[in-house]
Amino acid sequence: MAETLLVQELPLIIDGIRLNTIAANIRRPDRKDLVLIEMVEGTSVAAVFTQNAFCAAPVQIAKKHLNETTPRYLLINSGNANAGTGPAGIEAALACCSGVAKAVGCDVNQVLPFSTGVIGEPLPVSKITSCLDDLSAGLDEQRWRNASEAIMTTDTVPKLFSAKIEIDGKTLNITGMAKGSGMIRPDMATMLSYIATDAKIDSSLLQNCLQQAVDRSFNRITVDGDTSTNDSLVLMATGKSQIVIDENNLESFQMVLNELSETLARALVRDGEGATKLINVVVEQGQDEIECAKVAYAIAHSPLVKTAFFASDPNWGRILAAVGYAGVENLDIDKVEIYLDEVCIVQQGGIAASYSEEQGQAVMKNSEITIRVNLQRGQVNTTVWTCDFSYDYVKINAEYRT
Amino acid sequence: MAETLLVQELPLIIDGIRLNTIAANIRRPDRKDLVLIEMVEGTSVAAVFTQNAFCAAPVQIAKKHLNETTPRYLLINSGNANAGTGPAGIEAALACCSGVAKAVGCDVNQVLPFSTGVIGEPLPVSKITSCLDDLSAGLDEQRWRNASEAIMTTDTVPKLFSAKIEIDGKTLNITGMAKGSGMIRPDMATMLSYIATDAKIDSSLLQNCLQQAVDRSFNRITVDGDTSTNDSLVLMATGKSQIVIDENNLESFQMVLNELSETLARALVRDGEGATKLINVVVEQGQDEIECAKVAYAIAHSPLVKTAFFASDPNWGRILAAVGYAGVENLDIDKVEIYLDEVCIVQQGGIAASYSEEQGQAVMKNSEITIRVNLQRGQVNTTVWTCDFSYDYVKINAEYRT
Repeated sequence: MAETLLVQELPLIIDGIRLNTIAANIRRPDRKDLVLIEMVEGTSVAAVFTQNAFCAAPVQIAKKHLNETTPRYLLINSGNANAGTGPAGIEAALACCSGVAKAVGCDVNQVLPFSTGVIGEPLPVSKITSCLDDLSAGLDEQRWRNASEAIMTTDTVPKLFSAKIEIDGKTLNITGMAKGSGMIRPDMATMLSYIATDAKIDSSLLQNCLQQAVDRSFNRITVDGDTSTNDSLVLMATGKSQIVIDENNLESFQMVLNELSETLARALVRDGEGATKLINVVVEQGQDEIECAKVAYAIAHSPLVKTAFFASDPNWGRILAAVGYAGVENLDIDKVEIYLDEVCIVQQGGIAASYSEEQGQAVMKNSEITIRVNLQRGQVNTTVWTCDFSYDYVKINAEYRT
Repeated sequence: MAETLLVQELPLIIDGIRLNTIAANIRRPDRKDLVLIEMVEGTSVAAVFTQNAFCAAPVQIAKKHLNETTPRYLLINSGNANAGTGPAGIEAALACCSGVAKAVGCDVNQVLPFSTGVIGEPLPVSKITSCLDDLSAGLDEQRWRNASEAIMTTDTVPKLFSAKIEIDGKTLNITGMAKGSGMIRPDMATMLSYIATDAKIDSSLLQNCLQQAVDRSFNRITVDGDTSTNDSLVLMATGKSQIVIDENNLESFQMVLNELSETLARALVRDGEGATKLINVVVEQGQDEIECAKVAYAIAHSPLVKTAFFASDPNWGRILAAVGYAGVENLDIDKVEIYLDEVCIVQQGGIAASYSEEQGQAVMKNSEITIRVNLQRGQVNTTVWTCDFSYDYVKINAEYRT
């Protein structure tokens, strides 16, 4: 694996994928809020969905259709989540799938529906179905940027990245988009994400690769600790590059997929509602993944830590307190070391002898900061990404429905 | 148990307890920030402390002294938590105890130290010890109100309540104070609380009663999900009423203690940092206490729910989503019912047919609101108290150290 891997914001076309967007006036007028994605015949599809018990109608339908057959079309709307809508919501999601099937000439269960937006309001089905002929007529492989904008809700920027890698002398391309900036937490973290590659890979292997990538990216980010009812991620592999992924080159494929997933996941956190800082929480030398994650999430979910970061205040006592209540059994606090970037702030149960407030303040000025906690009791490391907690988080979420 | 129990804000003197406060200039000039409480010889003492692994120096010393002997004095300072201060912090806490012992003529380990305020700054010991002669000289049974004010940090109001009950033809009195408005979560929830009664009760029985009371009051409140390094609660029983608590009247004593503890705990939440609303989260008909608490805390910790309450927005979708991700196994979402006060908002997996936005908005105008979730799968109920999440929470915690 000597390839240089470059993740870029300029989207690469994925041969075999066509997209289009349209303004269906679902919530706001004159805003593109409906996306159709077409996959060429023979595309392998993998997907992961929210663990929320109240999963939305489109999630229920998408799971069912995926079980029945291989999908050819994804229909995504923003502005309305079609969640908490009971049996009527299921009917609405199915009606949208039927509309697509009729417009493009495929089976109903070859269409997967996705919705994001306000929970609990009826989906305006006819607004959607009346657009489907125009939407499908304009499918084009160039429209990734438009699609990444149309799926946004409270996002302030689209999240769209691409990467390529040389495998067996050929170029493999991968492009992914994601949306979501509140209600973000494992598992699943992102609200909606769609990733496509021209690799040729069997569906069950693709699903394994996706799960691995998600576990270290989308399932390791948190904005506010809330898990959405609608989180969905779809990974499509069209096979058009003719690069067959097998045990010989699987590692390269996994690497590029991991890299793209992590880039998208970090972009979601960086655009977290009201966020001004990206915080990498690294927990090192734990006994196992579970205790590392406990410590990392105790820090990443603490409103006290997050407001201190918003204020650029190196209030290390709040980080120390969060480590202390994370629930790690028999934690020897005298061994715990805490760093802000490269500055050691806690050692031997209290403030590090070498620490000065000036050092801490210098780090806190950065827009991306790493909190590193070394437990010194094992060999396992983990990383979680989060953001700070600002006035604007409260403002955005207090005014969301107004 | 036909007694009418009245909890009142006018503090009742507790025979056998004397208090005094003084301005030691620990953090701010001209503010009373040091409290001494004296218990008459023969007082039974029970206590509970924070579960935070990084527990503060005074907590470590208080636990040690309690193990060694029966305390006679409590020394409490605000403005500095003496937490995250390492071995120097332990020495500082001990030096304060020595100072009290010298001033009043008792053993060092008959003094329990308590600190609250900023974490990680050295305790200014000489400022404290230089006041102790004056502080002990002015001990007086009337000074509950002063004491409840002197222990405040970001609190906006003192929390001080009393109750009395007739037992065996005599009057039993109980008075308690508490402070704390951020970093509040089980276990232990309150930062500092001191409750005294003139009941005559054995220490181990008193400890049992305290644990029962705490489990349904201080351990059921949450402001921000953070657990402090300093949380401590001390219950003192002077015996001066000559009412001996035994199996015949234990229920009455437990009732009045529960009532006072719950009143103090709710007062802490009502004064939560930036809080504008008190939210009672009631989960009914769960299979066990654990799953009821999971659901209640998922709601009570959700920043999305808390900001919606701040905005008086009946955004029931966020409550439904929190129930969904609480992690209850095999939850049948079609059985779940959610109410705002008496208004049914969710039924059969979605919005209740009878619900109108106007009904929800009418409830949301209140300053105290009950969210009631009926799981319809068991016999167990639980209640958690929390508050909304406002601009001021961010402001208070972003500017705490400035």
